[in-house]
Formats: sequence, structure tokens, C-alpha cells
Amino acid sequence: MTAVDFDAFVHQLATVSGEAILPFFRTALGIEDKSAGRAFDPVTEADRAAEQAMRALIRSTFPAHGIIGEEFENVVASAPYTWALDPIDGTKSFIAGLPAWGTLIGLLKEGDPVYGMMHQPFIGERFFGDGGAARYRGPAGERTLATRDCGRLEDAVLYTTSPRLMNDEDRAAFGTVEERVRMSRYGGDCYAYCMVAAGLIDLVIETGLQDHDVIALVPIIEGAGGVVTSWEGGSPVAGGRVVAAGSRKVHEAALRQLTGG
Amino acid sequence: MTAVDFDAFVHQLATVSGEAILPFFRTALGIEDKSAGRAFDPVTEADRAAEQAMRALIRSTFPAHGIIGEEFENVVASAPYTWALDPIDGTKSFIAGLPAWGTLIGLLKEGDPVYGMMHQPFIGERFFGDGGAARYRGPAGERTLATRDCGRLEDAVLYTTSPRLMNDEDRAAFGTVEERVRMSRYGGDCYAYCMVAAGLIDLVIETGLQDHDVIALVPIIEGAGGVVTSWEGGSPVAGGRVVAAGSRKVHEAALRQLTGG
Repeated sequence: MTAVDFDAFVHQLATVSGEAILPFFRTALGIEDKSAGRAFDPVTEADRAAEQAMRALIRSTFPAHGIIGEEFENVVASAPYTWALDPIDGTKSFIAGLPAWGTLIGLLKEGDPVYGMMHQPFIGERFFGDGGAARYRGPAGERTLATRDCGRLEDAVLYTTSPRLMNDEDRAAFGTVEERVRMSRYGGDCYAYCMVAAGLIDLVIETGLQDHDVIALVPIIEGAGGVVTSWEGGSPVAGGRVVAAGSRKVHEAALRQLTGG
Repeated sequence: MTAVDFDAFVHQLATVSGEAILPFFRTALGIEDKSAGRAFDPVTEADRAAEQAMRALIRSTFPAHGIIGEEFENVVASAPYTWALDPIDGTKSFIAGLPAWGTLIGLLKEGDPVYGMMHQPFIGERFFGDGGAARYRGPAGERTLATRDCGRLEDAVLYTTSPRLMNDEDRAAFGTVEERVRMSRYGGDCYAYCMVAAGLIDLVIETGLQDHDVIALVPIIEGAGGVVTSWEGGSPVAGGRVVAAGSRKVHEAALRQLTGG
């Protein structure tokens, strides 16, 4: 069984998680309730409901598979496959009612990402790939995803979720890239990576990511022709400091700038 | 004829502008073309096509009305009404393929905003109000918009499109608010103001706005129970430095903090 066979199953996971999340989106409750120590918090509720729905479907379909999630304990695999789930990537956008959040569903085979999906259930769009190809399905129809090569940092559109999430040293290094690019913009979370895959953003630079924040995105970006690594150029699968780019050339230029090389 | 009579007409304007914009959204072209000096640039094309469509509809329906727009010359009114049009508020999000942009349609009566709409044609949602009430229509159904009162800055969710758009002095003042709030977040453009109206964001602080960036938002925010003024507490209609809040209390606290009072 190859990774490609999981395509229909991942779409099914996306559907059940979307159904679990949507009742909690833009409910005008929550923040205040959380600070008051009460139990109801829409983001946490949505996160848990979606992760439980996905875990149940994985358990019943592939009982030997492992699961890495945000809300519950990891399940160790007795098979080569492990799922990485992040029901709501972009929690702050979700809290604020903005649509730039998504559900990340990744599949590792012996530690390597072999399939990934980003699903935005409110808008109804899905970005998915297996490292060899990547596709989009949504209000704008269905199409192949392909990154672009803007050639050099000076022509790049750069995104990061927020420089406030970086430590001082990383923020300073990020700032030297930001000074060179054509356009720098904050926000976006998983959407920024998918827009690298769609050929609309050239560069995403972030720090402090969790493994489940990045695993699903790797096969989408690589499938669309892009590059994603740690700031040191190694595997991004563990999270931490990550650079995604539409082309090898721009990726290398960004790494050189970040590491002062 | 009261402002409320314009409701159906504004929905019609939103529909024609959305149809004009959507063919240009997420077309993987543009930035490079622009820098190469070629004529085709999807944002500008979309902006112009939508503004022309709206202007034509206004001209044929209300020939005496004035028009303030982004792309073409202002039309001076020979009637009490003037339209303020911003086909794509959130140009950078549009360029990057992110969904947090919208079309702003505002109506002034003798200089006062009496009706406003924010339309997001890709998601298919509309936020609209007349200063007395505000409503939402979209994938989540139709409902009344109502701001919330988080009580104090320390419990506020704050948005600004980007502190990089501010001059040093304004950014420093903004920073003193940012240090006090519960959560600060960048991005959003017109969406952030609509989420104040929806009771999900407590505070938006920005600078350098154009009149057509803000006129449409005033009747939505005020209709939902919020407050929107200049940093000095005056009318926000001319744009410039603007503060929007879900309650008078939080608005006053923000103004005091911004002006060092």
C-alpha cells in the first residue's frame, strides 16, 4: 500500500473534523469564560471534538497506526504509519473570527511525511499533496498546485505569523531578511505555507513550531515544487525554526541571510 | 427616502463587484509582471473592474449621487448622498492569496456615514449596517451583529493590520496599548473591524487610513453597538488614525493610553 492510497481516507478525516469544528467557530463566547476559569472555551472544545473524531476514525480503520496530536496523548504505532493531527492551526485567528486557520492532517511513513492536507471547513477548501504532486479543491474549483520562483529575495513576498513569537536573536535574523524582500506581511499560519504551494507567496519563515504544525505541510509544499527545511537546512519534521520557499534559489538565499553566511 | 431603503441596492453593488473581482483572485501572476513594467496586474485589474461595475450601477440608478473611489476620480454629488467605494480592502492579503480582504461600500448623507457593507465574495459573506443595527449573512447563516464589552484593556483582543505601517511615534503609542492587552495580533484589514462588530475582537487601532477604508465600516460597527473615532476622539470619516472598540469603556481606555492621558 502506497501513500497515495490514503487520499480518500484523508478527505474523510477532513470532513469529520470540519463537522466537529464549525459549530464552535465565531460563537461569541469563550475568551472571557476562559479567564473566569469556567469550563467552556470554544477553541479548546473545537480542537478536542475534531481530534477525537479523527482519532476514532483512524483507530477503527487503521488500528495499528500511530497518532501524534495536540490535545491527547500520542499513540505509538505498531505499523510504519503515524498520523500527525492539528485540528485548528491558527488558534488566534479562530478566536478572533478570522478565516485564516485550518486543520492539518499529516501522515508519516517510518518518520517521513508522505501525505498532507490543510482543510479550511468554513471556506470549504482543501490543499493536499504527497510530496510528488499537490492539488487544491475549493470554491475556485480544483487544480494542481505549483510554486513559483521569484528568483531572489528582493522580489520575494515573505510571510510570518508574527515576529512577536520569535526570541530576540531569531527576530533580528528574520529582520535582515525582511529588510531585503519586496513585501513582508504577518499572519496566515498554515495558509501562508499553502500559498507558497499555490505560487502566491515566495517565502515563509517561522520559529517555535510543533511537529504537528509542520508535518502535513511538507508533502504539500514539496509536491508543489517548493522546499521546506529547518533554518539549518535539515529536516523540518520536528518543528522548531522552519523556512519554506517556492524555489531552491530563494530558499538558499534565505538560509544564507538567516545564518549570516 | 431613508438610508434603509438603500439596503437592496447595496447588496446589488456587492454582487456586481464580487463578480468582477473573483476571476482575478489567486491567479498566479502579477507581482513579477508588475516589476517588469508589463500592464497586467491582477489586483489593479480587479480593483478597476469592480469599481467600474459599481460606478456604472450607481450612475444609472442614482445619477445625482456623488462617488468617492480608489481607482478613479471622485464624482461630486448634486444630491445629499455620496458613495465611498473600496473594491479590495486588504490588497496585500489579496496578492498573497489569503482570504482576509473585502469590498467596502459606504454611503454618506451630507457627509455622515448612513450605510455600510463589507463583502467577501470568495467566502460569500456580507457584514452590513446602518448605524442603528448591523447584520451578517454568509456560510454561517444570517444573524444580528453585536459587539461585546470586555471591560478593560487587559482583557482585550487587539488587532492592527501591521505596526510597520505606522510612523515611529504612533508605533510607540500603539506599543503601550499592545503591552497591556490580553492578545495582540496583526493582519485582518476590514475583517478586524467586522469582527469588532461580531463581538470577537475588542479593539482595532490603525493609522494612515483613507476615507474609503473607513466610511463603510462606521455604520457596521456603530450599528452593532461599538465605537469608532480618530485617535483624538473625533469623527473617523476622513481616515487617518482610527480606533474601533466594542464598548465605550474600552474605547476610552485605548484613547487615554494612545494619547498618554
